Amino acid sequence: MAASEIDKLIQLLARVPGLGPRSARRAVLQLMKKRDQLMLPLAQAMQRAAEQIRACSDCGNLDTQDPCAICRDPERESTSICLVEEVGDLWALERTSAFKGRYHVLGGTLSALDGRGPEQLNIDRLVRRVREAGCEEVILALSATVDGQTTAHYIAERLEDLGCQVTRLAHGVPVGGELDYLDDGTLTAALKARRPASG
Amino acid sequence: MAASEIDKLIQLLARVPGLGPRSARRAVLQLMKKRDQLMLPLAQAMQRAAEQIRACSDCGNLDTQDPCAICRDPERESTSICLVEEVGDLWALERTSAFKGRYHVLGGTLSALDGRGPEQLNIDRLVRRVREAGCEEVILALSATVDGQTTAHYIAERLEDLGCQVTRLAHGVPVGGELDYLDDGTLTAALKARRPASG
Repeated sequence: MAASEIDKLIQLLARVPGLGPRSARRAVLQLMKKRDQLMLPLAQAMQRAAEQIRACSDCGNLDTQDPCAICRDPERESTSICLVEEVGDLWALERTSAFKGRYHVLGGTLSALDGRGPEQLNIDRLVRRVREAGCEEVILALSATVDGQTTAHYIAERLEDLGCQVTRLAHGVPVGGELDYLDDGTLTAALKARRPASG
Repeated sequence: MAASEIDKLIQLLARVPGLGPRSARRAVLQLMKKRDQLMLPLAQAMQRAAEQIRACSDCGNLDTQDPCAICRDPERESTSICLVEEVGDLWALERTSAFKGRYHVLGGTLSALDGRGPEQLNIDRLVRRVREAGCEEVILALSATVDGQTTAHYIAERLEDLGCQVTRLAHGVPVGGELDYLDDGTLTAALKARRPASG
């Protein structure tokens, strides 16, 4: 039997997404072997992050300061807001360095199945931001799922009278993707949105 | 860009076996969502485990006390020692509740490739334990790999003159295993070690 402190750590670690009971046991053994190089620094980094990281009250991004670094950055265009479902999507877009505006984290999608309505999402705050900042473009970077697209429609309607352009990400063939492996929906969308080959 | 505290946590978490950079990012986002239920308790359990858990100076098992709970337990036979490579193997055997003796954690196997010789393993301590405790049986519960079996041979030789029986785990068909999927070596071993069907 492992000591109760080890058991407790394994049980908690097994609840981390990506780990299960078996991999949590292996992880704990490795952590114990790298106590000073990994286990203690990890415990402290986790404690610090849990204490210091908060959601930005403007956009919903996670940061130690509020407003977050992106909302504070004067070099980023405040007239362009990219709407994402979750902070992970924001990170994914930031890794591309392709967008120089600000973000707004919705906190999920509308979902009839999960009983998630507009009031559970960060929508009112978006409408207020668009109105107050004189925003010119809202990019709907939502999932290409039924729930994601339903949410996109709903938000486009909510933003209709505010005088800002509402766009969405392009559908098409993923870069590096082989046609043979693509689903029909993506292929149809890519065909419909075809562009001059020189562009 | 994520805040530096988040980046640091992701980098450390990505070094945990079973997680990579991508799953570490997902894990951190989930942890932030379950800050009070999971993230803070996990950070504290990890800190406590790192501070309190030590290797037992008798057998090498991990516990908050030294000697460990198994070495302290008077109900466990001290005349039978089960030799395992790692603490994880000890846990696996303990989960079966099939062994009522004590353990000895070797800390790995001999390995020419990794340059691991007898002096890097917990062998001298085993020899001393066997001699001092008047041990009657040492069960070599080592991996059925080349390195594991080389190590088993070496240890059996070291224990030869101490007057205790040296045994090893049986090879054979895993319980629930289908013959069709078994490798030739296991099938051969299972055939050679066949037993009366009534037993």
